Amino acid sequence: MASEPSPETLTSYLKLSDTDDNGSSHGDSLEKNPEEPPKNISKKAAKKEAMKAEKLKKQQQMAASAAQIDELDPLASNYGDIPLKELQSKDISGRVWTEVKSLSEELKDTEVLIRGQAQTIRAVSKNMAFIVLRERGFTVQCVFTIAPGFVSKQMVKFVTGLSRESYIDVYGVVSVPGVAIKGSSQQVEVQGRKIFCINRAIPTLPFNLEDAARSEAEFIKAEQTGEQLVRVGQDTRLNNRVLDMRTPANQGIFRIQYQVCNLFRMFLSSEDFVEIHTPKLIAGASEGGSAVFKLDYKGQPACLAQSPQLHKQMAICGNFGRVFEVGHVFRAEDSFTHRHLCEFTGLDVEMEIKEHYFEVLDIVDRLFVYIFDELNQKCKKELEAVNKQYPFEPLKYLWKTLLLTFKEGIEMLKEAGIDADPLGDLNTETERKLGQLVREKYDTDFYILHRYPLAVRPFYTMPCYDDDLYSNSFDVFIRGEEIISGAQRVHDAEFLSNRAQALGIDLKTISTYVDSFRYGAPTHGGFGVGLERVVMLFCGLNNIRKTSLFPRDPQRLAP
Amino acid sequence: MASEPSPETLTSYLKLSDTDDNGSSHGDSLEKNPEEPPKNISKKAAKKEAMKAEKLKKQQQMAASAAQIDELDPLASNYGDIPLKELQSKDISGRVWTEVKSLSEELKDTEVLIRGQAQTIRAVSKNMAFIVLRERGFTVQCVFTIAPGFVSKQMVKFVTGLSRESYIDVYGVVSVPGVAIKGSSQQVEVQGRKIFCINRAIPTLPFNLEDAARSEAEFIKAEQTGEQLVRVGQDTRLNNRVLDMRTPANQGIFRIQYQVCNLFRMFLSSEDFVEIHTPKLIAGASEGGSAVFKLDYKGQPACLAQSPQLHKQMAICGNFGRVFEVGHVFRAEDSFTHRHLCEFTGLDVEMEIKEHYFEVLDIVDRLFVYIFDELNQKCKKELEAVNKQYPFEPLKYLWKTLLLTFKEGIEMLKEAGIDADPLGDLNTETERKLGQLVREKYDTDFYILHRYPLAVRPFYTMPCYDDDLYSNSFDVFIRGEEIISGAQRVHDAEFLSNRAQALGIDLKTISTYVDSFRYGAPTHGGFGVGLERVVMLFCGLNNIRKTSLFPRDPQRLAP
Repeated sequence: MASEPSPETLTSYLKLSDTDDNGSSHGDSLEKNPEEPPKNISKKAAKKEAMKAEKLKKQQQMAASAAQIDELDPLASNYGDIPLKELQSKDISGRVWTEVKSLSEELKDTEVLIRGQAQTIRAVSKNMAFIVLRERGFTVQCVFTIAPGFVSKQMVKFVTGLSRESYIDVYGVVSVPGVAIKGSSQQVEVQGRKIFCINRAIPTLPFNLEDAARSEAEFIKAEQTGEQLVRVGQDTRLNNRVLDMRTPANQGIFRIQYQVCNLFRMFLSSEDFVEIHTPKLIAGASEGGSAVFKLDYKGQPACLAQSPQLHKQMAICGNFGRVFEVGHVFRAEDSFTHRHLCEFTGLDVEMEIKEHYFEVLDIVDRLFVYIFDELNQKCKKELEAVNKQYPFEPLKYLWKTLLLTFKEGIEMLKEAGIDADPLGDLNTETERKLGQLVREKYDTDFYILHRYPLAVRPFYTMPCYDDDLYSNSFDVFIRGEEIISGAQRVHDAEFLSNRAQALGIDLKTISTYVDSFRYGAPTHGGFGVGLERVVMLFCGLNNIRKTSLFPRDPQRLAP
Repeated sequence: MASEPSPETLTSYLKLSDTDDNGSSHGDSLEKNPEEPPKNISKKAAKKEAMKAEKLKKQQQMAASAAQIDELDPLASNYGDIPLKELQSKDISGRVWTEVKSLSEELKDTEVLIRGQAQTIRAVSKNMAFIVLRERGFTVQCVFTIAPGFVSKQMVKFVTGLSRESYIDVYGVVSVPGVAIKGSSQQVEVQGRKIFCINRAIPTLPFNLEDAARSEAEFIKAEQTGEQLVRVGQDTRLNNRVLDMRTPANQGIFRIQYQVCNLFRMFLSSEDFVEIHTPKLIAGASEGGSAVFKLDYKGQPACLAQSPQLHKQMAICGNFGRVFEVGHVFRAEDSFTHRHLCEFTGLDVEMEIKEHYFEVLDIVDRLFVYIFDELNQKCKKELEAVNKQYPFEPLKYLWKTLLLTFKEGIEMLKEAGIDADPLGDLNTETERKLGQLVREKYDTDFYILHRYPLAVRPFYTMPCYDDDLYSNSFDVFIRGEEIISGAQRVHDAEFLSNRAQALGIDLKTISTYVDSFRYGAPTHGGFGVGLERVVMLFCGLNNIRKTSLFPRDPQRLAP
């Protein structure tokens, strides 16, 4: 129980210190290494690193000389690089930083202190320079004009000598220009009075942010006008993901991703689901068939879970009634497609059912309509940012999700002249075609296809009551691509073990799973969703690597 | 956008079907395998499985014969085993099940249908039998007394022939006995009219739930009275985790765990943090030092992330400002202690700081006081259930968390006659002793120790401004055991790479990480929490295996 604190414990972590207001001064921002040279490092690596360091040092010296300050400037204490030492939690000054996103006309003539990155730096003349300062996606224009007692010529020189993306503190006064400001999100300016650099970026970045943020439309326009624009390729972006993350579209994508997760949990919590965490290190393959990552577990052969399928079902047998999990899923498939990753975030659901797998579909329907509705409401700015770089049509979905049987799907394809095996699986191309047909007929990009052929589903899938060739299973599609797979599961241990054997699965590897159904098991069902796919398809993006913060594919294991 | 559905799409998933009210009948509940015998399965496994199946069949035949029904009973359609076929989503009957937890006096004389597991089955005579039916931890007593036109002798026989933990549907009328009902959570009874078995448990379970739910006090009392009680050991529990999960204490533990996660996210979301998902498959060791699980990643050597440390910092460099992650963490350490797992759930936080790591401590303080306050409010029943089997004192914590320096901690230990190296780390024993001393002096089980010696912290830890031997780092303790580790991080690429080299870390393995700080990096800090440890220590449990649904330790990789 929380009790009243005794006098000794009333430590105010964030109390003001009694040191100087700020101890900033210009100079080298790099702390010298206080340690001995390394002992265990390889010579080659050390040499390479030394060369790298040397190169960097030169770059930094160039930058520093550009920002060389005249010591005689009486305003010299109003600008400069803050030495690293000063940034090691030296003291708590009590200064208050204003967030860039809150800079508005209401703050006119107020003095503010803001921190962010120098997105663009532009010298208008020797007397004037602009910085667009960015903080978490919001930008404001800072103006440094020579003014006696406030801004010196040397200070303007310091400003123009800064490298893009460097972190800076700007002290200034908010002003409201009569005209719209095109290059920044905030419609006020900050008249700079002091500027200090917290951390300098290297002068030559792997790519420029504005190049990385261009839309296809800009390239088309540039081609027409003969302008030369730099195109930043996917691999360059991913190799330098930290920089790439800073574009408005990427800030939007990952904040939308966060919301999808958030809404998923909120909805399920409100429906009495409990979140669980199941192991990713398992002794057998979590699902028969596709390739798994294998490893040695303290002398035992082990692999990484391809899904939480077996364990989430075990949690249902363990009386949790309704469970969900948000966790990593590992697939060692050699898929080089636009929609496969070797590691992704799985949103998994499993629940007791009373009679019918439609009880699961009811959750799918209401959950996703809720997520889509809320995304459209809560993520307006983020969707706009994505749309600006990667234009897409808003997702069409129905108030009550369309439900078609697999047979009906095959029939629709047939009518359109496409032959698909009524007892086989749909391939990516056919799925996409069916998505088009459904959109034309029902005006929706989101629908459920159920009663799949039993032969194309995993061993734990419950066959249909009235036809053993089909199963109580379903896939869910957005814009013609699968995002969800689910089914009623076999809850009877004998039948389950027969099904596994029939599909050639080694029962030894799933014995604890099968045994879980011997102690009284409820009828149940569930589904799994790929988070990255949901975001990709909601935003109509063309590649799943765009919706994974640090994607892993058969060739990519870094950064 | 959601538009009005066209007539074809108004499919009501849960519409009533026009088939019989219910198609239940007595008989064998096991569906025969409709498939051919397996082709790819090993002979040995097949033989073993066949023997297992044979054994089971015998057990089931015994159970079935016990429940043999007289065909001449005119009430025969009111009880029996529902064949598997009927449970394959045959139809949607429109029947409504009442939740056991909602059974109260208000429902007196109402007819209800309930589903759950037969926790205990007791024959009072040939004319009367009791079943305690359990659903998600709530229990109710169902009474079957012979009554002409309602309950036959054969029906009572069927009831007593059921095996414990079998899933059943009971139709009955709610009655209110004059006295308190000791053996169930609900203080009403259900006078049974119909009973159908959905799924039979095997007659001999690995252990009885009531044995698994006993407290130490019961064993002590039994010893005094000479009563023989079965003690269910930890390995037996974990080997049969599905069964073990069903005890009231375990239902409580994992619902508390769910709430910790939930509260963690809710608090951080309200403070502008964004949830991220970082890769668990990485090319280098995520932190130097401790053992990692290694694997082959498509021909490249890889390992499992020991923490999201490097990637969460990269997300901070990627402009997300404040991030958190709930994800799996893998440690291949050979630790056989009560508090180490090879796989656990990490709650990770990383954030920009303006000046001081106390900004991080402020979050730690408010976050955990919020979590503890809310747990005490929201999880009263769950805490009570845990307390009943594993008695513990409620956690003592202060309204404002106590903050001590490492030096102050060493001093307190010294005063108590315990020598600890002021530049070394504390061992588990010393940590626990310090916890006791802190509790005596400050009346709290929860406190923060900061300014740890630099030598005992990872390379990315920022040294103190005023003393290079110490660092801007902290650990947080509950009941004398560490649950959180955190610090201000080095944000300067050169200094970071020097520190890594000084500690003998191969720079090649962390080059993309170090490079992340070359494009402008903010001052930042963060911390990591072990979810299982928080739950274990909040509830004063003695072993972390109790708070992991499917624990993984150096010897355990199943279930």
